[in-house]
Amino acid sequence: MIDDLVVRKAETFREKQNIEVLVGHRALSIDGRGRVLAVAAQGGQPRSIPYDRLLIATGARPVVPDRPGFELEGVMTLKSLEDGRNIKSFLDSGRVHNAVIIGMGYIALEMCEALRGRGVTVTMVKPRSTLLPWMPGELSSAVRHELERNQVQVQTGFSIDRIEREGRNLRVVGSDAAFTADLVLTAVGVQPNSELAVQAGLDLGPGRAIAVDRSLRTSDPAIYAAGDCADAFHVVTGARTWIPLALRANRAGWAVADHVCGRAVELPGVVGSAVFKVFSLEVARTGVTISEAGQAGFEPVQVIIESGSRAHSHPGSVSIKVHMVGDKKSGRLLGVQMVGQEGVAHRINSVAVALHAGMTVDQFLQCDLAYAPPFGPSWDPLLTAANQLVKLL
Amino acid sequence: MIDDLVVRKAETFREKQNIEVLVGHRALSIDGRGRVLAVAAQGGQPRSIPYDRLLIATGARPVVPDRPGFELEGVMTLKSLEDGRNIKSFLDSGRVHNAVIIGMGYIALEMCEALRGRGVTVTMVKPRSTLLPWMPGELSSAVRHELERNQVQVQTGFSIDRIEREGRNLRVVGSDAAFTADLVLTAVGVQPNSELAVQAGLDLGPGRAIAVDRSLRTSDPAIYAAGDCADAFHVVTGARTWIPLALRANRAGWAVADHVCGRAVELPGVVGSAVFKVFSLEVARTGVTISEAGQAGFEPVQVIIESGSRAHSHPGSVSIKVHMVGDKKSGRLLGVQMVGQEGVAHRINSVAVALHAGMTVDQFLQCDLAYAPPFGPSWDPLLTAANQLVKLL
Repeated sequence: MIDDLVVRKAETFREKQNIEVLVGHRALSIDGRGRVLAVAAQGGQPRSIPYDRLLIATGARPVVPDRPGFELEGVMTLKSLEDGRNIKSFLDSGRVHNAVIIGMGYIALEMCEALRGRGVTVTMVKPRSTLLPWMPGELSSAVRHELERNQVQVQTGFSIDRIEREGRNLRVVGSDAAFTADLVLTAVGVQPNSELAVQAGLDLGPGRAIAVDRSLRTSDPAIYAAGDCADAFHVVTGARTWIPLALRANRAGWAVADHVCGRAVELPGVVGSAVFKVFSLEVARTGVTISEAGQAGFEPVQVIIESGSRAHSHPGSVSIKVHMVGDKKSGRLLGVQMVGQEGVAHRINSVAVALHAGMTVDQFLQCDLAYAPPFGPSWDPLLTAANQLVKLL
Repeated sequence: MIDDLVVRKAETFREKQNIEVLVGHRALSIDGRGRVLAVAAQGGQPRSIPYDRLLIATGARPVVPDRPGFELEGVMTLKSLEDGRNIKSFLDSGRVHNAVIIGMGYIALEMCEALRGRGVTVTMVKPRSTLLPWMPGELSSAVRHELERNQVQVQTGFSIDRIEREGRNLRVVGSDAAFTADLVLTAVGVQPNSELAVQAGLDLGPGRAIAVDRSLRTSDPAIYAAGDCADAFHVVTGARTWIPLALRANRAGWAVADHVCGRAVELPGVVGSAVFKVFSLEVARTGVTISEAGQAGFEPVQVIIESGSRAHSHPGSVSIKVHMVGDKKSGRLLGVQMVGQEGVAHRINSVAVALHAGMTVDQFLQCDLAYAPPFGPSWDPLLTAANQLVKLL
């Protein structure tokens, strides 16, 4: 099952594409002036590989808090297939009845659902007092409610001090509370594996990701970087950003290949689209938040509206909440966040396209979105939000 | 239940908004030069109402084939609430076991599902040999399959000759076949109620809809038209089109009110977005078909791809088929059609926005669409289609 996640194996690269893949090897350092990469097999001697063009695609790794106890058995992260296998076999051992998840990002929320699906009691903890700080309270409360409805204990404002072993259990100790668990999952985010780039003297961008231009070139034009280790331009703000997600990583890899093969390719960048599922709730965002918009020099205004997922005449309609941000100076649409039990995940993409097109809120409001009673009101929730927002612009 | 569909009653207009609503009246004729409208109550004498600005919002009515028997009891159309009540009470009488639906448009397909839901045997007939002629066979076959999977008999190439009464039953007679039914539903499309406009000498557009400019003014600047009786500009072709759907009708009404009240409003037009449900299948389109594109002077190329509704690692993924059309001359994205059991209805809207923005296929391909395993592959089916199409441009 986990092995099904391997899209392509090293042998495929070798046999079908004549690409030499040195598995079990580590890239040690880059000599940018001499265009030489130093590599070594595990326990082996370093050797040099010359290059004309070099791609750094080292990805990202989970952040592990610098506190005692994170090395204990039963304290895990989820990034690699190996991590997945470890968690799965630990769960299969039948010893896991309680889990504490540190963090509330996408991985944390997905793992929370997977653990509850196996009947594991889950407590989620994070130091900040807000559940999803980038989201207004009217929307994040729907997420909190969905977690609680699924018997997940949500403990915000919990600053972790250490993890201890207590007999067969683990104890997650904070400043004023502690939780006992059989499994502790650390999911407080990722950091780019940019050490090679630092050693080679390449420029870094936000979050210490490797800075790349629209053709994925680093500050050394013979060296590219792509994937979760590299930054990108934000189409809404024009500034560099680091939002490590699958589509951008994949797209950047293809673009590097095109570029190296002589096809000039420029990627415009990202708009920060993301979607995740929290039990039966869909949560999505694209563009910038109101505070990101302010920091980027916009004069942001916002609305929050509630609408139905289906026409009022259609049975089974549920609530969709839409938060929309626009710029008072230019009238531009800047970002949207949505939550709802249905009709959220793909709806966000119409906004993503509008952001790429640099549309004003009014231009978006004029878009001819598809309507049928099972799929929404005749005025799509996004149009209703835009209709309210234009009044503030 | 049916009365719940009435969003606002005549009394509400009178009491809350001080708008005089003459129900039970008929507009007889327009004197555009004198700016006078002639109206009459049922059986009453005509009287004149002077106007500064006039809005024609007469809607559309079902097309009834000019063949014998369509006046028989049990042969029905569905447009008004009264029609809905009639069909419902006829069904409630318990006499309806077999129904023949003439036509295969949105109303026909929705009624088909409603009738099957009540256990009525349904046969759908239409004269043309193709099920949905605007859709390529690879996609329309999925619709046919879904109908047949739900025990709906689909009879294309059936040219209706007449309807006869045969004892307690109706007999729908074609050139080389006949079907017996308790209920015959005519749903072969609508035509605009544009007779008043014709009498007043106003210009007509496609389908004999009332021609309006982007401010919904007819060829007489004191007279507006909005709703299913009026045409619109197609944003992709720039030409006039008549696609009578709810969102445009509603939007046009608001725009006329704005315009009459002195707020200059221009509606860019429609891109022909539509979505409908056929049992558990979602079917959606936006933009122009390959043949419409050719007629509009484009040099259209197309792809049809099949993708999954979820990531390959995620259980429950079903097939989504995407048909995408682009222009070889300009690289522009021209239209998309999609079918699938999930993830189709709202996905189409990202294309609708791209069409409003006049994006090329390549620009659309660069859009940062949201990804999570439960909601699609990391390359959205629409991006996969764009990726294939861009190679033909």
